[in-house]
Amino acid sequence: MATTPVKVHGPPLSTAVSRVLACLIEKDVPFQLIPVNMAKGEHKSPDFLKIQPFGQVPAFQDETTSLFESRAICRYICEKYAEKGNKGLYGTNPLAKASIDQWVEAEGQSFNPPSSVLVFQLAFAPRMKLKQDQSLISQNEAKLEKVLEVYEKRLGESRFLAGDEFSLADLSHLPNAHYLVNAADRGELFTSKENVGRWWGEISSRDSWKKVVDMQNQST
Amino acid sequence: MATTPVKVHGPPLSTAVSRVLACLIEKDVPFQLIPVNMAKGEHKSPDFLKIQPFGQVPAFQDETTSLFESRAICRYICEKYAEKGNKGLYGTNPLAKASIDQWVEAEGQSFNPPSSVLVFQLAFAPRMKLKQDQSLISQNEAKLEKVLEVYEKRLGESRFLAGDEFSLADLSHLPNAHYLVNAADRGELFTSKENVGRWWGEISSRDSWKKVVDMQNQST
Ligand SMILES: N[C@@H](CCC(=O)N[C@@H](CS)C(=O)NCC(=O)O)C(=O)O
Ligand SMILES: N[C@@H](CCC(=O)N[C@@H](CS)C(=O)NCC(=O)O)C(=O)O
Repeated sequence: MATTPVKVHGPPLSTAVSRVLACLIEKDVPFQLIPVNMAKGEHKSPDFLKIQPFGQVPAFQDETTSLFESRAICRYICEKYAEKGNKGLYGTNPLAKASIDQWVEAEGQSFNPPSSVLVFQLAFAPRMKLKQDQSLISQNEAKLEKVLEVYEKRLGESRFLAGDEFSLADLSHLPNAHYLVNAADRGELFTSKENVGRWWGEISSRDSWKKVVDMQNQST
Repeated sequence: MATTPVKVHGPPLSTAVSRVLACLIEKDVPFQLIPVNMAKGEHKSPDFLKIQPFGQVPAFQDETTSLFESRAICRYICEKYAEKGNKGLYGTNPLAKASIDQWVEAEGQSFNPPSSVLVFQLAFAPRMKLKQDQSLISQNEAKLEKVLEVYEKRLGESRFLAGDEFSLADLSHLPNAHYLVNAADRGELFTSKENVGRWWGEISSRDSWKKVVDMQNQST
């Protein structure tokens, strides 16, 4: 086990950074948060590009390992620290893991594309005094609505996306969903659906996520 | 080990289906291909939605396991059939695996979004007699160019994306790259870059991929 805490480079306000933070807290893995001043373009500096070649946050370091891509970092944390914290976060057998993996992919491929556009347009653009693109907003609302209809059906069959336990699949949705509900006035997308509403209530009230939200609030 | 072959539902011409096929062939896992007539909307039928709730191909079945999402299916195949075929496809130790996972994510998050738009616009839209959207094409060409510049640098440091061996990370790029080079007249995006060009030559000439291309050609 690591003697020095793992390092996460990037601001907790970033959705991809907060995905990794939620995972570390669930897994009870000590970490050190290293600020990256994105307003000053630090994420495009030569030093940062050495650890995240696309110039995005987060970047992650554990002893001699350096990784990027939030979902790959989460999988690594679950594998490396299998015995720590929430042991079921990435499943405890190959079948459970495959189901979790499938829903992490669904998040990355189906939920994230429309929701990250909406988060940017509705929550970040106003703060950055950028003009909102209304047609992009309505297109992506319609896309997200369709995705959430699939989730509604799934969450009528099982308590969480990958089965009866909270997992990385649910966790992976928290960052974007949090902004949609709390900073983009789109809570209804979730709460108007019985099962999705119940699920959102349950996953967003986990201690791990509340700690991430505290970190976000402290950093503004 | 399975006594009956695994089942892949969907046409080999689909990029996501062909990703799974390439993986099965690399891993030397026998499979049965089950046609899904997308022109007739079979992928939106109630029976198909039971195995792929988003109404997309591929869907995958192995004994009692049913999965969707091509990249999650590939990971499952590599884990379940670890001892078969190409044993290094998903790494042989946790660090190698984390690196592969990171580049599979980069494919899914950075390479796939612009390249799948280009494949649709340049290769499929003309066949389907749909009008091409020129501004979408140039936007996504610019995005893909930036991604490939990151790859150019990476592939100057290592022979393949995740290290010195061909892996799931490289394989995952084959379906979209194949169409861009061979059906969309965008080969130059790859061959104009020294390392990316070398890499593309190497990965696209693997026997596994040639077999997938044969299956695609036979199905048109
Ligand atoms: N797929 C990446 C996405 C990372 C990402 O998009 N990060 C955003 C902040 S949430 C960023 O760094 N944006 C700045 C930029 O792209 O220049 C991951 O999951 O880690
Ligand atoms: N993320 C999914 C994507 C699947 C996908 O987009 N499949 C396409 C064909 S390549 C499809 O079924 N399109 C029909 C539709 O979306 O209605 C995967 O990797 O399996």
